[in-house]
Amino acid sequence: MQLQPTRKISLVEQAALQMERFIERGHWSVGEKIPSESTLSQELGISRNTLREAVRALVHTGLLEAKPGDGTYVKATSVLGVALQKRFEEVPRKDVFAARHMLERESARYAAMHRTGEQLQELYKFLRLRRQADKHEDFVAFDFAFHRQVTLASGNVLFVELYDQLANHISKSISETSMGDHPLCHDEHQQLVEAIETKQPDQAVRAVDAYIQQIS
Amino acid sequence: MQLQPTRKISLVEQAALQMERFIERGHWSVGEKIPSESTLSQELGISRNTLREAVRALVHTGLLEAKPGDGTYVKATSVLGVALQKRFEEVPRKDVFAARHMLERESARYAAMHRTGEQLQELYKFLRLRRQADKHEDFVAFDFAFHRQVTLASGNVLFVELYDQLANHISKSISETSMGDHPLCHDEHQQLVEAIETKQPDQAVRAVDAYIQQIS
Repeated sequence: MQLQPTRKISLVEQAALQMERFIERGHWSVGEKIPSESTLSQELGISRNTLREAVRALVHTGLLEAKPGDGTYVKATSVLGVALQKRFEEVPRKDVFAARHMLERESARYAAMHRTGEQLQELYKFLRLRRQADKHEDFVAFDFAFHRQVTLASGNVLFVELYDQLANHISKSISETSMGDHPLCHDEHQQLVEAIETKQPDQAVRAVDAYIQQIS
Repeated sequence: MQLQPTRKISLVEQAALQMERFIERGHWSVGEKIPSESTLSQELGISRNTLREAVRALVHTGLLEAKPGDGTYVKATSVLGVALQKRFEEVPRKDVFAARHMLERESARYAAMHRTGEQLQELYKFLRLRRQADKHEDFVAFDFAFHRQVTLASGNVLFVELYDQLANHISKSISETSMGDHPLCHDEHQQLVEAIETKQPDQAVRAVDAYIQQIS
């Protein structure tokens, strides 16, 4: 056994970490204005200067946004999310698409092994809503909800988190590929849910491959 | 066309962003002590107080580490990397393993479509070194180099970046699964390279599935 050196954490860092946790846990939600400097410095028991510095650290990470003359607003819920979004914008679009397909294939595989009865019911529900959608924007929303549900049914928290972060890009791409003459792939989606129901991972992956091929 | 409102970026933020870019581009490398406060504040044309605040913002994101009484050191090269590492430590281990397998499967698939002749030669080189390794630590190093090369051959920058960030966890797991009686899967790795050489994506994925099944 080895003694660990104690570490001095600055007041700024303590305040920044506390506010970060507050945001990550949803006590302050995106778009919300955070309390005034005087309220926060009192609650955290620190000077206004220390608080201002902690706020600026969170502005730098992208969690908060300062609007001069107005106040400070919550801009994002997690540092990982901000960093991923930034990266998705920098890399070639084809690489983001491939990442999307990767997550859909693997989520299907694990969903076919680990899905619960409830998750299966949700899948059938979104499958039906997706098929019945009249308006384009409804189709896009239900299609996204369907694929997110497959990811949830995989039981892998990393898959869900990565998929959620890809969501912006994904919604945009679903909206493009499902416009005009693009196929809606109802049969392939039906086959996917059936493979997940009967717990056949390889069949599930093949169904994903089938709709990817149609929309590519 | 719409005019965009001009945005005032604080001096602290400007200094933090400049240093962040310096680190991300490798001008300052991990483990290196950054220049003194007086040098940096002069070079950036800002006061020492402003510089100190910018440094603290980068300490908060995890790019820099302050060692009191010594100096400030570079701790990591990218915000995304720090955020991913943190997340990998928080989530269940099985989910990290599944993410590793996901990247290996999909990298194999795309490598079989896009690999260059040079990348193929590198794969055969690491395959040979992996097979010939006498010492356990050599095997671990060459095995990692082999799999990283498959990821590079996929041509997807997101796959490479995610795989590199998983590297710590992956090296550890390779080292565990290749100890004692665990199979080294030489044949499966050979089959993977052959499928990549003959450009057969499905065969490549099957070879990955085969070694994953052996080590699971």
